[in-house]
Amino acid sequence: MVLGANNYGKAEVRLVHVRRATPTHELTDLTVSVALAGDLAETHLTGDNANVLPTDTQKNTVYAFARAGIGEVEAFGLALARHFVDSQPTIGTARIDVEQHDWRRLGPHSFARVGEGTRTAAVTYDGSQAWVVSGVSDLVLMNTTDSAFTGFIRDPYTTLADADDRILATAVNAAWRHRRSEADWAASYAGARTALTEAFVGTRSLSLQQTLYAMGSAVLEARPEVVEVRLSLPNRHHFLVDLTPFELDNPGEVFYAADRPYGLIEGTVLADGAPPAGLAWALAR
Amino acid sequence: MVLGANNYGKAEVRLVHVRRATPTHELTDLTVSVALAGDLAETHLTGDNANVLPTDTQKNTVYAFARAGIGEVEAFGLALARHFVDSQPTIGTARIDVEQHDWRRLGPHSFARVGEGTRTAAVTYDGSQAWVVSGVSDLVLMNTTDSAFTGFIRDPYTTLADADDRILATAVNAAWRHRRSEADWAASYAGARTALTEAFVGTRSLSLQQTLYAMGSAVLEARPEVVEVRLSLPNRHHFLVDLTPFELDNPGEVFYAADRPYGLIEGTVLADGAPPAGLAWALAR
Amino acid sequence: MVLGANNYGKAEVRLVHVRRATPTHELTDLTVSVALAGDLAETHLTGDNANVLPTDTQKNTVYAFARAGIGEVEAFGLALARHFVDSQPTIGTARIDVEQHDWRRLGPHSFARVGEGTRTAAVTYDGSQAWVVSGVSDLVLMNTTDSAFTGFIRDPYTTLADADDRILATAVNAAWRHRRSEADWAASYAGARTALTEAFVGTRSLSLQQTLYAMGSAVLEARPEVVEVRLSLPNRHHFLVDLTPFELDNPGEVFYAADRPYGLIEGTVLADGAPPAGLAWALAR
Amino acid sequence: MVLGANNYGKAEVRLVHVRRATPTHELTDLTVSVALAGDLAETHLTGDNANVLPTDTQKNTVYAFARAGIGEVEAFGLALARHFVDSQPTIGTARIDVEQHDWRRLGPHSFARVGEGTRTAAVTYDGSQAWVVSGVSDLVLMNTTDSAFTGFIRDPYTTLADADDRILATAVNAAWRHRRSEADWAASYAGARTALTEAFVGTRSLSLQQTLYAMGSAVLEARPEVVEVRLSLPNRHHFLVDLTPFELDNPGEVFYAADRPYGLIEGTVLADGAPPAGLAWALAR
Repeated sequence: MVLGANNYGKAEVRLVHVRRATPTHELTDLTVSVALAGDLAETHLTGDNANVLPTDTQKNTVYAFARAGIGEVEAFGLALARHFVDSQPTIGTARIDVEQHDWRRLGPHSFARVGEGTRTAAVTYDGSQAWVVSGVSDLVLMNTTDSAFTGFIRDPYTTLADADDRILATAVNAAWRHRRSEADWAASYAGARTALTEAFVGTRSLSLQQTLYAMGSAVLEARPEVVEVRLSLPNRHHFLVDLTPFELDNPGEVFYAADRPYGLIEGTVLADGAPPAGLAWALAR
Repeated sequence: MVLGANNYGKAEVRLVHVRRATPTHELTDLTVSVALAGDLAETHLTGDNANVLPTDTQKNTVYAFARAGIGEVEAFGLALARHFVDSQPTIGTARIDVEQHDWRRLGPHSFARVGEGTRTAAVTYDGSQAWVVSGVSDLVLMNTTDSAFTGFIRDPYTTLADADDRILATAVNAAWRHRRSEADWAASYAGARTALTEAFVGTRSLSLQQTLYAMGSAVLEARPEVVEVRLSLPNRHHFLVDLTPFELDNPGEVFYAADRPYGLIEGTVLADGAPPAGLAWALAR
Repeated sequence: MVLGANNYGKAEVRLVHVRRATPTHELTDLTVSVALAGDLAETHLTGDNANVLPTDTQKNTVYAFARAGIGEVEAFGLALARHFVDSQPTIGTARIDVEQHDWRRLGPHSFARVGEGTRTAAVTYDGSQAWVVSGVSDLVLMNTTDSAFTGFIRDPYTTLADADDRILATAVNAAWRHRRSEADWAASYAGARTALTEAFVGTRSLSLQQTLYAMGSAVLEARPEVVEVRLSLPNRHHFLVDLTPFELDNPGEVFYAADRPYGLIEGTVLADGAPPAGLAWALAR
Repeated sequence: MVLGANNYGKAEVRLVHVRRATPTHELTDLTVSVALAGDLAETHLTGDNANVLPTDTQKNTVYAFARAGIGEVEAFGLALARHFVDSQPTIGTARIDVEQHDWRRLGPHSFARVGEGTRTAAVTYDGSQAWVVSGVSDLVLMNTTDSAFTGFIRDPYTTLADADDRILATAVNAAWRHRRSEADWAASYAGARTALTEAFVGTRSLSLQQTLYAMGSAVLEARPEVVEVRLSLPNRHHFLVDLTPFELDNPGEVFYAADRPYGLIEGTVLADGAPPAGLAWALAR
């Protein structure tokens, strides 16, 4: 019996930072998770914790690092990941996951929380190399036309009819890997997000897969610093309601938005010659 | 043993409506709940359903009524409530609850879901009178300063220190009763919401109760068609992190956003001479 | 403009108590919410908090009272409610809401959390009288037969067919008012819960309303200390899947469990001569 | 730009099956997700769906297969996975994820839903080989003593004190890979679950990592058909409440159960000579 891959850390540290340098406050609202791997066999096998940096300490570190200001989430993640590995001989690899919650300014020190997708960042560092993945989750988009789904396989269990004009709605969960661990993170995020949204809006969709590929390609085209895009797109089905029993037509106007089940389309688009992913997507290969 | 107050209906009908009259589509996304009361003793006592309009029929009715367009949610609710009571001799009272989910336009037929509070409406009709309550739920607001909490009772269980400058954050759940069942619903909602938000932003708060009263009063001042405002404000605590163990100060910059427990402040503000609430807030008196 | 009904308090205090008097530990896991009403106009109108017992103090009080042991949740709620009103001249009424989370014993000091409904208690005290409501929430029950729904109203929006044999499933949310503020709470809860469950199981149901009335009546019959039962029963629809396209029959065997929309049946059953409810169900009349 | 790994399918098909062969009904309640991979480039690149089996068809297939009865979830998953790959030339690999929701019998055709962890199964089939992973999620366990955490690294951000006697609570998320795609699934699941629980209960824990390793090892020892166990254990922190301001001691009796942040311990335990994992854990290598 052997111990395999393992990691540990503090998850979902809720951190709110207010920059008060001027009367116009700046607000940053994050959920930060830390995961560390390294020379940790002893705590598993004997309970000897001499190599373990407590998860409570990890939490403290997140707050202490925030004192100097947060900046872009990728940079904040890099600073934390490098700190844990570089300061702790027993920690070989660190991964920092960040969610950034958006607020809209209402006044010099007033804000409203807005939900239109959540910016994410995942940074991994192994002592010599760092990988940065940026992303957006739960960005819900809808096209009310310009979407079809026809010409698919029909087998004995198929009852679905061709759809020439349907609603296409999804909650975009996208993450994109950067070529290097340095970039203009703010511009990169804004550009990638715009590319995703514009591709969704602009694609006359014959399948959600086609839209997915168009979205991933658009990010790669718009942002040369990005080498890989992974997308997970739930198909939020909107079913046309049959109103004929009530002697009404329904020319694509009244829909039932279903919860479950839902289609789930997942795919990756890579730049030609993308470097290997290394630890970008997970702490262990 | 006697049967007391009772009602039944179809809850959470998910309705999406697309107006396609022009190439620029209009999107309306609602969750509609129906509750009916009336001469319903028999189904309880003997299982005789002769007086019961099925909840499935209620759902169908919501979809059929949507075929003609939805308009403002208060008007849609009124139409449905009146239909059920006026068309069914056994139904004496109907209540329609609506949540409206916001989407931001991205193109002629493209939209992004946005979350910055949810508009609500609750309409009750008893065959002769209708009551309309509009509202907003989960509108999360924050002031990063201009909030204090001092001078409170100290008893043997009190450890809280005075706070001269704290974060004040809340998820606004507000509902306001209209004087009549006719109004310019769109303008009324927009005005009430603006009044709520501006009062939150503009109040130098000595307690969340004071902010609550300011918010309710602001709606009544701004909207003469409104006679009562009910507010439920969870206090989303943001605790200053103690960074002194790390030889850092923390002058109101680094906070821990707590989940539970939370303060919950609830209150009502009424216009002078507000008419009785009748069935505005519940199906049964 | 006038201030109407209002209350405030600390919600969702998570309290876990371990009795270690013997090597066989006893575990109690509660979520406790406090709401207070009284002479609170000043904090609303001027921000003067001289009459306000902080919600932080309320939380402290919950923990401090737990030190002496918890016992039955109704008794714990009564002690807290009486404390707040009797010790604070400015507090006229207190309401304590408790949820009790179940754990199953695995060993002398080991437990597994089990979910089969949550026991609840709501206690209100106004300085002279106390009201106690016990309950259970989210107790999910299903009968796979012995349920029908026929003979209902058919209007132009009705498409539902008679169902002679359907699945009946619901998440029981029930609360029952006690005649007095003293009872054998443990026996009362156990008996009421058994009565609810047995009535659900034993009723050959012609409508969920009939089952509701049977459940409420059963509690009143079994427990003379109970004078009113309120039930809220979502109808968790299970739709028979049409397998005929696949040349298969489906004699009541394969179902789709739908999320939304759902029927919602609510009703009250009262003992003959039940005393007035007073503040049992809400802090304000 | 190139298309990388991709898959698609229908997620969260809610399937309830009632076996009515005898008056004592048997109930099976599942949430089933299908994911397929294969020759799917065209739908991504051009929107040609000729190779796409619709997710709607996948849903239909789940229901149709259920008509013959479900049996153990691993076997049901294997049948579905093999069907999709063997019947569709364009589908190379299928993965079926199943969650089984527990109900307790109350009578011949009556049941109560119980939550004490959820049984899971994940089956992958690539046309020649099948991998089966069984598991349990959200099994919440607690030891009220016999847990310590001492002797850890102290760095400048460490404030945590040694804990000699603390509460240890976690929500077990465990999955274990089978050596072969044939086994007595019911006995295997029951045995693995018992091993997990008994190891949690029986380990005098010096760290949650030690408990994790003990749990994984126990499964491998008890079930020779299992070759790998993966565990993800959130540390549900219970903090001792400081009651000294109220002149009360707190000898391990009154705790605050925190929501976030939480420690998260993840690890793998492998049998000596475990065969390679292949596609057991993911559709793509």
